[in-house]
Amino acid sequence: MNNKIIKVLSPATVANVACGFDVLGFALNDINDELVMRIIPKRGVTIINKDDFNLPVEPKQNVIGISLLALLEEIEDEIGFEVKSTKHIRPGSGIGSSAASAAGAVFGANHLLNNRFTNDDLIRFAMQGEELASGAKHADNIAPCIYGGFTLIRSNDPLDIIPIPAPFLYVTIIHPQIEIKTSDARSVLKRQVLLADAVKQWGNVGGLIAGLMKNDYELISRSLVDNIVEPIRSILIPCFDEVKSKSLAAGALGGGISGSGPSMFMISKDQKMALEIEKIAKKVYEKIGLPCHTYVTNLNKRGVQIQEMNELIQNENALL
Amino acid sequence: MNNKIIKVLSPATVANVACGFDVLGFALNDINDELVMRIIPKRGVTIINKDDFNLPVEPKQNVIGISLLALLEEIEDEIGFEVKSTKHIRPGSGIGSSAASAAGAVFGANHLLNNRFTNDDLIRFAMQGEELASGAKHADNIAPCIYGGFTLIRSNDPLDIIPIPAPFLYVTIIHPQIEIKTSDARSVLKRQVLLADAVKQWGNVGGLIAGLMKNDYELISRSLVDNIVEPIRSILIPCFDEVKSKSLAAGALGGGISGSGPSMFMISKDQKMALEIEKIAKKVYEKIGLPCHTYVTNLNKRGVQIQEMNELIQNENALL
Repeated sequence: MNNKIIKVLSPATVANVACGFDVLGFALNDINDELVMRIIPKRGVTIINKDDFNLPVEPKQNVIGISLLALLEEIEDEIGFEVKSTKHIRPGSGIGSSAASAAGAVFGANHLLNNRFTNDDLIRFAMQGEELASGAKHADNIAPCIYGGFTLIRSNDPLDIIPIPAPFLYVTIIHPQIEIKTSDARSVLKRQVLLADAVKQWGNVGGLIAGLMKNDYELISRSLVDNIVEPIRSILIPCFDEVKSKSLAAGALGGGISGSGPSMFMISKDQKMALEIEKIAKKVYEKIGLPCHTYVTNLNKRGVQIQEMNELIQNENALL
Repeated sequence: MNNKIIKVLSPATVANVACGFDVLGFALNDINDELVMRIIPKRGVTIINKDDFNLPVEPKQNVIGISLLALLEEIEDEIGFEVKSTKHIRPGSGIGSSAASAAGAVFGANHLLNNRFTNDDLIRFAMQGEELASGAKHADNIAPCIYGGFTLIRSNDPLDIIPIPAPFLYVTIIHPQIEIKTSDARSVLKRQVLLADAVKQWGNVGGLIAGLMKNDYELISRSLVDNIVEPIRSILIPCFDEVKSKSLAAGALGGGISGSGPSMFMISKDQKMALEIEKIAKKVYEKIGLPCHTYVTNLNKRGVQIQEMNELIQNENALL
């Protein structure tokens, strides 16, 4: 058992990414949850919330707790974890808030355990947290959160995560202040889809992967199309079509619903365009009087980051 | 008008490629149709068959004719084409016989016209031929036939063809001697598919594109899975499951139905394995007494090839 204290910066993520429903995600810079973690000398997880979201601290009702308990089940050491969680990613915003908690916690724990687990193990543990949060064991936020960049979840079972090289991209996140539960967003989906629509969708997934790997912005743009999920889910997001069509007209490469919403993401080739899209979106929501948070950031290629705080242990209370 | 005579070598192709139904195809070496072509001084197409397949020579009933008429509609010159066709790719075999005729003809015509059309124009013309042959304007044989290598048809309308870089791969083509009409193979498909199956399929399409572009043979292998079309269409092909499972057990990377069958393709990393798969398949069909043609070849990265025959004009009859 070591007595390190670490700070984990766990990024926001965009899942689905238009055509890539349930298989694609990417990580964002600048928007991170912070977890300060250490090993404690008894089995179990202690969660201390350092924010105002009032999330449950009972480990089995908290994605951090569930994920760390899944990890603890696979080690024999008589240890546990203490986690002080400061969430900056608002729960329910659609940019991977629960994934940031779950993935950050298990990534940090693994660091404290001298990296005895693989990334795929960590994803497996954190998926337990996602199941608590959304009712589905999905990896399309967790995988990019841990790996950074774009990730393809080729398969959930067995888990098969493929990091996808990508060019530098700017992202505008538009978060109209309404609530959409992931479980509701799932329930509006149809169980069956037209084969003809599915063919278009996998053509676009192939195009998006090729576009990212070839640094072909035009191909990325043409491929950021969702024939299947967006037409249904976007109905739950006020002014979705207006924001999207105005963003595309202004020059965004493309975009769509982030995760299951209500946030939208729009991808741009440069920062100027991403800032322009932000203005456009703000204007649309101001017009209807709906509060809307926005971020302009870019693709995070590193994923979760760890800061060692050894030197700060002596003055822990002051800092944490 | 020029008086060149050219010989066109137009390769066989594998369409669909497991998960890539209607969007992926690749070209094969060693198996080519031959077309000897020249410009003639009157509108129209003259087709002379130099093989025993007895295909119709009336241009509107022949994929070569239909495709060249589509091309002629977009030029004003008072010219036409004479085509002497020697097919080595058996019609109905499932390795792009009609596409080789259609794509070869328009590619050759464009060469005779000093390349005034783009590849995408040529694909558009040749798709008219495919419509005659199969009832569907699909490009997943034509595109790899013209471009070579692997091609992704991101979209049919508007046409969007993406060449996909790929490592060197060996291919075993297994052609049990039964007949499956493309139109029948289409009619057994269901109009709707489960969203859950479609998600698996586009995960695999993404994985296959990434695997090809990363030269990751293991990822290619894991991605060569078809949850949607193969389970239905393979019922039309005797011993499909046995040949496939034995090939995979022996070490093939993967495979499936070539186009709409009855040919199967199996992909291997080296020639030895591809030859081993050929033996396995032959043995399976010998056991049930069904004749079976096989080929062992590799990925054709060049597509249609042209040989100029200027020097041979004086002795044309002897040669053609």
